[in-house]
Amino acid sequence: MRFFSDNAAPVHPAVLAALGNANTLDTAYDGDALSKSLDARFSELFETEVTALWVPSGTAANCLALAALCPPYGGVVCHRDAHIQNDECGAPEFYTHGAKLMLAEGEGAKLTPATITTLLDSIANDVHRVQPHALSITNATEYGRVYAPAEVAAIGELAKTRGLGLHMDGARFANAVAHLGCSPADVTWRAGVDALSFGFIKNGGMSAEALIFFKRDLAAATLMRRKRAGLLLSKGRYLAAQLLAMLDGDLWLETARAANTGAALLAGAAGERLLHPVEANEVFLRATADEAARLRAKGFDFYDWADGEIRLVTSWDQQPEHILPLADAIATL
Amino acid sequence: MRFFSDNAAPVHPAVLAALGNANTLDTAYDGDALSKSLDARFSELFETEVTALWVPSGTAANCLALAALCPPYGGVVCHRDAHIQNDECGAPEFYTHGAKLMLAEGEGAKLTPATITTLLDSIANDVHRVQPHALSITNATEYGRVYAPAEVAAIGELAKTRGLGLHMDGARFANAVAHLGCSPADVTWRAGVDALSFGFIKNGGMSAEALIFFKRDLAAATLMRRKRAGLLLSKGRYLAAQLLAMLDGDLWLETARAANTGAALLAGAAGERLLHPVEANEVFLRATADEAARLRAKGFDFYDWADGEIRLVTSWDQQPEHILPLADAIATL
Amino acid sequence: MRFFSDNAAPVHPAVLAALGNANTLDTAYDGDALSKSLDARFSELFETEVTALWVPSGTAANCLALAALCPPYGGVVCHRDAHIQNDECGAPEFYTHGAKLMLAEGEGAKLTPATITTLLDSIANDVHRVQPHALSITNATEYGRVYAPAEVAAIGELAKTRGLGLHMDGARFANAVAHLGCSPADVTWRAGVDALSFGFIKNGGMSAEALIFFKRDLAAATLMRRKRAGLLLSKGRYLAAQLLAMLDGDLWLETARAANTGAALLAGAAGERLLHPVEANEVFLRATADEAARLRAKGFDFYDWADGEIRLVTSWDQQPEHILPLADAIATL
Amino acid sequence: MRFFSDNAAPVHPAVLAALGNANTLDTAYDGDALSKSLDARFSELFETEVTALWVPSGTAANCLALAALCPPYGGVVCHRDAHIQNDECGAPEFYTHGAKLMLAEGEGAKLTPATITTLLDSIANDVHRVQPHALSITNATEYGRVYAPAEVAAIGELAKTRGLGLHMDGARFANAVAHLGCSPADVTWRAGVDALSFGFIKNGGMSAEALIFFKRDLAAATLMRRKRAGLLLSKGRYLAAQLLAMLDGDLWLETARAANTGAALLAGAAGERLLHPVEANEVFLRATADEAARLRAKGFDFYDWADGEIRLVTSWDQQPEHILPLADAIATL
Repeated sequence: MRFFSDNAAPVHPAVLAALGNANTLDTAYDGDALSKSLDARFSELFETEVTALWVPSGTAANCLALAALCPPYGGVVCHRDAHIQNDECGAPEFYTHGAKLMLAEGEGAKLTPATITTLLDSIANDVHRVQPHALSITNATEYGRVYAPAEVAAIGELAKTRGLGLHMDGARFANAVAHLGCSPADVTWRAGVDALSFGFIKNGGMSAEALIFFKRDLAAATLMRRKRAGLLLSKGRYLAAQLLAMLDGDLWLETARAANTGAALLAGAAGERLLHPVEANEVFLRATADEAARLRAKGFDFYDWADGEIRLVTSWDQQPEHILPLADAIATL
Repeated sequence: MRFFSDNAAPVHPAVLAALGNANTLDTAYDGDALSKSLDARFSELFETEVTALWVPSGTAANCLALAALCPPYGGVVCHRDAHIQNDECGAPEFYTHGAKLMLAEGEGAKLTPATITTLLDSIANDVHRVQPHALSITNATEYGRVYAPAEVAAIGELAKTRGLGLHMDGARFANAVAHLGCSPADVTWRAGVDALSFGFIKNGGMSAEALIFFKRDLAAATLMRRKRAGLLLSKGRYLAAQLLAMLDGDLWLETARAANTGAALLAGAAGERLLHPVEANEVFLRATADEAARLRAKGFDFYDWADGEIRLVTSWDQQPEHILPLADAIATL
Repeated sequence: MRFFSDNAAPVHPAVLAALGNANTLDTAYDGDALSKSLDARFSELFETEVTALWVPSGTAANCLALAALCPPYGGVVCHRDAHIQNDECGAPEFYTHGAKLMLAEGEGAKLTPATITTLLDSIANDVHRVQPHALSITNATEYGRVYAPAEVAAIGELAKTRGLGLHMDGARFANAVAHLGCSPADVTWRAGVDALSFGFIKNGGMSAEALIFFKRDLAAATLMRRKRAGLLLSKGRYLAAQLLAMLDGDLWLETARAANTGAALLAGAAGERLLHPVEANEVFLRATADEAARLRAKGFDFYDWADGEIRLVTSWDQQPEHILPLADAIATL
Repeated sequence: MRFFSDNAAPVHPAVLAALGNANTLDTAYDGDALSKSLDARFSELFETEVTALWVPSGTAANCLALAALCPPYGGVVCHRDAHIQNDECGAPEFYTHGAKLMLAEGEGAKLTPATITTLLDSIANDVHRVQPHALSITNATEYGRVYAPAEVAAIGELAKTRGLGLHMDGARFANAVAHLGCSPADVTWRAGVDALSFGFIKNGGMSAEALIFFKRDLAAATLMRRKRAGLLLSKGRYLAAQLLAMLDGDLWLETARAANTGAALLAGAAGERLLHPVEANEVFLRATADEAARLRAKGFDFYDWADGEIRLVTSWDQQPEHILPLADAIATL
């Protein structure tokens, strides 16, 4: 059973079905009816007017957002363990034309106003130092931790005070919202977020993420950048269809809850082994190499995070009956 | 009936079916079994060892290839009417970090050794002028013209003599090969092509093109660039599945032949109106604004190319019965 | 005697002397008293508040200006024969991160509202085409032609109407102003120019040009870009000193008049050979290879412009007695 | 008396005189006799064939070198306190088109094979992580510490083993060599350095640094990049003249020794206050805000490095009589 990454999970049947339903003639690129409906559909979800663009990857969503928020000669503050820093092969630098990621600290890969302020205050305000232009936070974080609305709002307030744009990497935004039980608006624009990478692929989608601009005037340049990056797929209706299928009937929340539930089951079995509180669908455990080997011998696959640490990721399609054998195996290590 | 663009056509049922068949658990990115099989499958097709990467758009394929062939301070020779020059919003400049497109002439958007040489010889060889590093030709061209193997080979020979890389934009490569009836190898690596953007989307695919490196040492850096551009989709198996479905049983040739056949029917009806010989699936006609309006009034949609000129593009899914009404309408204008 | 380029001329003694006078202790970069005086000094000259930055080359001035006026995904309209297109090795693409130069026509390398409009109107306003963001004109042009204030104003009006920034490459701005006899203001900001590359090096300077922002809010980002490009020299006072020495007593006009006078002498001798009206310090002549060889045999050095065409450039330090022998030689060819 | 930065010091009279001597007619850019003599002159100094380019700033030298050693998708390992990381406003990212600086540790801003290895071994070798392509070390470092030949050689060996290029930022290379008393060759190419930014400006020059390629095949692309960056000054002979004047009679060593001597005098007076061993011309001291104020009240200017720390930099033109009053003031704090 695979707990390696939610990227490995299959696509939700509703998403596949939507592709079939979209399989008629329509205009190319994003001129089709499905693509054109995205703004309205996401505006409804977020209870405010937004501009919503499909893109084929989370890296693309993140980096288009950063390019919209930060000039080439600027900097983006993020956590030292952020995906944009460690796992995108320099995509932020490519899309922003060389902006600098400025690394701040924080427990569980969460930034706080205090850790951000410490970093900002260390940067001399002159032409010799790259000056910060934006903040990027990840919700849920790389350690499966979730920012609550008030936490985001505190960062949003700081961003506003310092004149910085605020981006949220929401590759697992659905898991965060499912955990919080709040409106998606509460943890985004109401808390000061300007742009959101809203992930669907890990959560049952196939090849479409949504890039949401709450600060809508950022979108015009981004439409040019999306094309210029080879990201304006010529049959865009098949991406829009995926997103719409995930929104229909709040499927995105349903699948995220399923994945979170699985992680909670594992967390319950892990006891003292837990390295981080489990708030989304990732579980980090202390486990010796020998223990890890024993789990693998039982057919469970997962990621060796660091020395003596393993990462388990649950997916939307894993039912309790898929999870419990691993929970048992952990409990009896 | 839509003759606006082959991008507007639906996806072939075999491609949709392949997505369903791929819908099981596998490794993320391009580590899955389907993605791993691409090199072998395309090597078989091209009768030589190639490296084959899926990418989600033709612009991405083109520009990754150009970045592999040309440094930021170099130039790429292409036709004045090339897609990379006119229709990709500066994507070549983005991916190459500012290389310059150098525009050459040629009938039907085809370059020739003579027109290339004229351009090359006009460039002083000093540090003040951008120096050419690569050639890019399009087969079939923006005007639906096809380079025969000998024509490509003559350009390939020139490229070799001048120390230039050679890229082929094959957004409609299938249509070109279907027209030529040759081996795909004859019009690519055997003729000196280093990298090919092998288009499938216009020809029945959904969201996957293949970037083929005949000069395989170009691929390693490209793997990094693909990731860095946000093009390494996390569920890559669904892109690989599309390409494999198109290769199975030479479906790609079958669909291309269908589109070409439709264009030939239109060409036959067009007589003196034809602006370019019809060799692929595009038909350019002289038509006054009034004539265009009359065609549209009959329900035919198409692109106004230039003053007094219209472009008709046929698609893989259009049978003769879909084409003949337009052919009739043209004949009786 | 050298008529190859005004770049080959020596430095004016007043500039050298100014370096010696600046040779005391002061703050590094541009914090010194001389650098700090530039804004005021150039504001006086231009009769309006400007921001003035020293840079060590005309290419640097041009490309910092273009980067301030055009985003990476945009385009800059310039003449087909512009220095930024042909002689800067892609520096505009480097500084703008891949913006596209869009080439317009015009006699004597001069753009006109008509030629600009023809180009602009050919660009479809969609995300597939690079959209223009700025115009760049050269005064005096590559053919030694001068835009009069009314000509610039007509272009400035067009730029405003179309929402485009306007840059003037003034590598030989001094020669243009000397020819026009107008206020520098008349041919720049009063005519709609946003940024000017004000050349001094060809005109008696050593290694300092001035980048003048009439639209002053463009300067802040440019200060970052200047540093980021390695152009913020650490002993900037020696660059400021050069500029100030050239401004003192209108030395820049005196040297430009001297060069223009030399060119006029040559033009007078050239008669029917003249390819362009001589308005600055460049003279383009019809001359066969044999005639060119005969001039060279007499000790005159110059540039072979094109087949059967030569370019003669006069310099600030050439007195009539240096020019007349060449004038005689031309007259007696 | 100014101990703020050696960038504030005046230019050596021999350099000024050389400008006057160069003030004759010659070819533009780097085609003049002086520029052409640089390769030979620096080859002699380094006892091997090198390619030597003048550039107008240390940032330019550093970043051209890094662009030659690292592709846009790669990384450059440097010290956390390196000038390229902290003081060049993202110039490395600009010149390399977005390569990532990878920060390693080390006492006195010196990298060691151990600290480099720790960093390298933490980087997973896959397409998700930026892969290192080069190392950059600074000699003397930001804390005035000097790498001895054996220390560089150990790093050079590691670089070779790992397939990394090796750059040395030698903004104060002269001070390092003066301290070491070795041949410049010993601490550069004999120890594995591929490219050196050889600083002259802080050491008595005006506006010329030398970029030295020991791995000469890196130079060809760099000539294009230098032009493309606006760094190919049109009257290059005045930069070459400065470098040649500094090399004549080993003036560069003489001036560096003078600056080092001054720093040694201060170090001798500082006793327990010293934060770093003084090996070049920088002295870092513990000093309370009150103590710093008292020194300033006596007319000494310097940089507040960090809380409770000050930085004093001595310059080539400061004689012991200029230094001793500060030494006394420190001793009697």
